[in-house]
Amino acid sequence: MYQLFIANKNYSSWSLRPWLLLQQLNIPFNEQLQQFQVDNYANFRSFSPTAKVPCLHDGDTQVWESLAIVEYLAERHEGVWPADATARNYARCAASEMHAGFVTLRNVCTMNCGVRAQLHNPPAALAPELARLDELWQQGLAQFGGPFLAGKDFTAVDAFFAPVAFRVQTYDLLLSDKALTYVKHLLALPAMQSWYQAALQESWREPSHEAEIGLYGTVLIDYRKC
Amino acid sequence: MYQLFIANKNYSSWSLRPWLLLQQLNIPFNEQLQQFQVDNYANFRSFSPTAKVPCLHDGDTQVWESLAIVEYLAERHEGVWPADATARNYARCAASEMHAGFVTLRNVCTMNCGVRAQLHNPPAALAPELARLDELWQQGLAQFGGPFLAGKDFTAVDAFFAPVAFRVQTYDLLLSDKALTYVKHLLALPAMQSWYQAALQESWREPSHEAEIGLYGTVLIDYRKC
Repeated sequence: MYQLFIANKNYSSWSLRPWLLLQQLNIPFNEQLQQFQVDNYANFRSFSPTAKVPCLHDGDTQVWESLAIVEYLAERHEGVWPADATARNYARCAASEMHAGFVTLRNVCTMNCGVRAQLHNPPAALAPELARLDELWQQGLAQFGGPFLAGKDFTAVDAFFAPVAFRVQTYDLLLSDKALTYVKHLLALPAMQSWYQAALQESWREPSHEAEIGLYGTVLIDYRKC
Repeated sequence: MYQLFIANKNYSSWSLRPWLLLQQLNIPFNEQLQQFQVDNYANFRSFSPTAKVPCLHDGDTQVWESLAIVEYLAERHEGVWPADATARNYARCAASEMHAGFVTLRNVCTMNCGVRAQLHNPPAALAPELARLDELWQQGLAQFGGPFLAGKDFTAVDAFFAPVAFRVQTYDLLLSDKALTYVKHLLALPAMQSWYQAALQESWREPSHEAEIGLYGTVLIDYRKC
């Protein structure tokens, strides 16, 4: 069976992507959760060549990059990408754009599922990134009919934007009604709810992740239970 | 026929990747070179939804992300990825690692094909990235037998690291003998030579790209002819 190495559900946006995809497609896997430490390197290197999460193990094969995990699964399981070629091209472009792009959004609105925060004076680069995100989502929702980005079914492109849904919730980000409807649809998925509840139960706090939110915002509410 | 939108060959590392892949696989395409300007946005938005290069047009279909271009081509042409599943997994992981990683290498050693430069006091993060690059290359070269990263044939993973070969040449980066042999092999490809010669002939200088090299280095030689 697949082993999926991930880190803290409260913080690890990259971990969420393949975890959610496997859950949504009902692909069995063992979750191997490793806590973030002040220095992860030695521990994370023991299961991932980049010392980063996520990393998928399939027997002796290590698949250590999120997009490569998606393509690895797509060669072995139905439904990872849309069946329609036009929708599949959109989905791959959008997932790849998320993979290396939206850098300001990722740095300023770090994932911290359990809290609600107010941003103060975010960098000017944030607004155009949110505008592009909204445009990209609306393109997919309009062209392929929703409720998911590439049509009626959840595919890997939705997995790639799932962490953004938590960021929108945490920072109350201003998006169009259509984009916010999509965010609500993602947040309501049972697997997203399951991830969220597990994040709230985590008692571990990792100082550098906690400090990130203070760079551009103030925590208003902390729903974490431990 | 495909239209591939790219920018200045001297600077545009992202443009080189799909251009070289198409050349190496003998896939016909029309090159659409657009010069970098101080503000590219309006022009680049006219052919690319992110206002970035590269962007592949196939009729009415726009493919606007480098990894998505590779997968789009892989669905339509032989040889984009290795045929062997183990080699293909390595190739996809390594290409994806390059796509979003090696950030310090990309920022400190910006691609500027025509010059030779000396680095001064690069950030401490550069050395571990070069060590990881060397490890990653040596893994592929040893496991799949070379001379390319995933075996005897050029595939998309080599296209993804081709700009690094120019960076190694420009900044005289210290790598292992095996890694440097691979760099020489890439630089000697006729298509790489063709790109390089075209870069040397470009008369356009774009101030922000020229300034980048001065942040961490000094230009020793400028081979550009115009």
